[in-house]
Amino acid sequence: MRRRSFSMARCPMDELVLIGIGTGSLDHLTREGEAEIRRADCILVPRKEAAKAELAKLKRGICVSVLGEEAESRILEFDMPVREAGSDYLVSVDAWHGEIRKAWDVALEARDAERVALLVWGDPSLYDSTLRIAARLRPAPKVRVVPGITALQALTAAHAIPLNELNAPVTITTGRRLREEGWPEGAETVAVMLDAELSFRHLDPSQLHVWWGAYLGMEDQVLASGPLAEVAERIVETRAAAREAHGWIMDTYLLKRRNRDVARNSSAS
Amino acid sequence: MRRRSFSMARCPMDELVLIGIGTGSLDHLTREGEAEIRRADCILVPRKEAAKAELAKLKRGICVSVLGEEAESRILEFDMPVREAGSDYLVSVDAWHGEIRKAWDVALEARDAERVALLVWGDPSLYDSTLRIAARLRPAPKVRVVPGITALQALTAAHAIPLNELNAPVTITTGRRLREEGWPEGAETVAVMLDAELSFRHLDPSQLHVWWGAYLGMEDQVLASGPLAEVAERIVETRAAAREAHGWIMDTYLLKRRNRDVARNSSAS
Repeated sequence: MRRRSFSMARCPMDELVLIGIGTGSLDHLTREGEAEIRRADCILVPRKEAAKAELAKLKRGICVSVLGEEAESRILEFDMPVREAGSDYLVSVDAWHGEIRKAWDVALEARDAERVALLVWGDPSLYDSTLRIAARLRPAPKVRVVPGITALQALTAAHAIPLNELNAPVTITTGRRLREEGWPEGAETVAVMLDAELSFRHLDPSQLHVWWGAYLGMEDQVLASGPLAEVAERIVETRAAAREAHGWIMDTYLLKRRNRDVARNSSAS
Repeated sequence: MRRRSFSMARCPMDELVLIGIGTGSLDHLTREGEAEIRRADCILVPRKEAAKAELAKLKRGICVSVLGEEAESRILEFDMPVREAGSDYLVSVDAWHGEIRKAWDVALEARDAERVALLVWGDPSLYDSTLRIAARLRPAPKVRVVPGITALQALTAAHAIPLNELNAPVTITTGRRLREEGWPEGAETVAVMLDAELSFRHLDPSQLHVWWGAYLGMEDQVLASGPLAEVAERIVETRAAAREAHGWIMDTYLLKRRNRDVARNSSAS
């Protein structure tokens, strides 16, 4: 039963479902993700600048594949604010999250949607801000998360490699951290997210091996791997050309330090 | 077309597909996982000791849900060798992997299967040995990986929390490493896999916050979270009781160091 709220200019959302959809391939959609897309009254899809229109199109395509003709009436587009660069990264991200939350409110004002869904690239819990933005909603809806295949999993699957060495730890970090702090202390395996600048260029490449991939799980998937010193330049060029051709790129990579100890462990597993 | 190999007592497998199936819920199955289960000539399912029969049953249930009546003729059970404890962990794991590989060979000898699938809990790339065992097969089949929802993603989804803090790294490690080496240097967020001993008991709990979960994504899901000092004992007791009741348990947890800096960042995101 719908609860009508004529007296308030505020979204009547009871439940917000963040659905991890994987890296762009319909193949990544889980049964749970599909069921939640079907159950949603309304699916919020960000409209981005022209070059990234393809990304909104991919999300629309997922909705159409699940909902068929009903997709159009359930999709609600909103203009995604652009983050303004500030001297303090965390402060500028904070302001940006506030703007996105307002954009959701504005979009939802016109709708009577109790159950709202947002499709999230990868997994809503891994280097994605939607949970943080959702925490700002007042009144607070119930927030639920549907896990999705992350870029990191699509990367290791595409290369058919394990993420971790036997009984060894893995560090996941951001391009920004890698640039500012260098190789994480004591790490053997480092997975890098949100790195539009391919920050491995700031590292000493000796002993490092890289596995990179873009458009993971999709038809246009591109992969490269090898000793970082040998393949770094090729990855930089491939990425630039692919981004130019598509108008957007989503990519990630994994680095492993190949020292003697690692070599010994690998041969023993 | 089937290639017959009468002259060799060796598996004629051309392709081995490792399918990540998530943590036990059918909801975690991806479209790709489902399609690959359908395409396989034969699905290898380990038979374990009686107490863990439920785990093989779960895998069978997934096959039946996808294949219907055909499931029975495609499932091929094999006896899973037990790892013998040795003084050197890596050496004993190495020997065990060799035994598992032999068990696959024995099971497959009777079948004429070109495309063999193995259902892997979670994701085949994250703290799972199947890729390492597959690398021992001779002649080497083509090995493909289908990513699946990991226990870690099911955990953060169930608690509706992000894995990482804003622009901050995450360390994934094993219970064994945590016991032997303590809190990873410089880490703020630590996810712990393969920890049947709840090794957080070996840490100083002050400033640590824990999010724990078992049977994630399933009907029997159990969650607990809070300051480690307050909830550690409850988690230990809950886990022991649940394991006793079910005969098996699959669980994982996440620890975050809640110092002043983290508190400041959190309020700013």
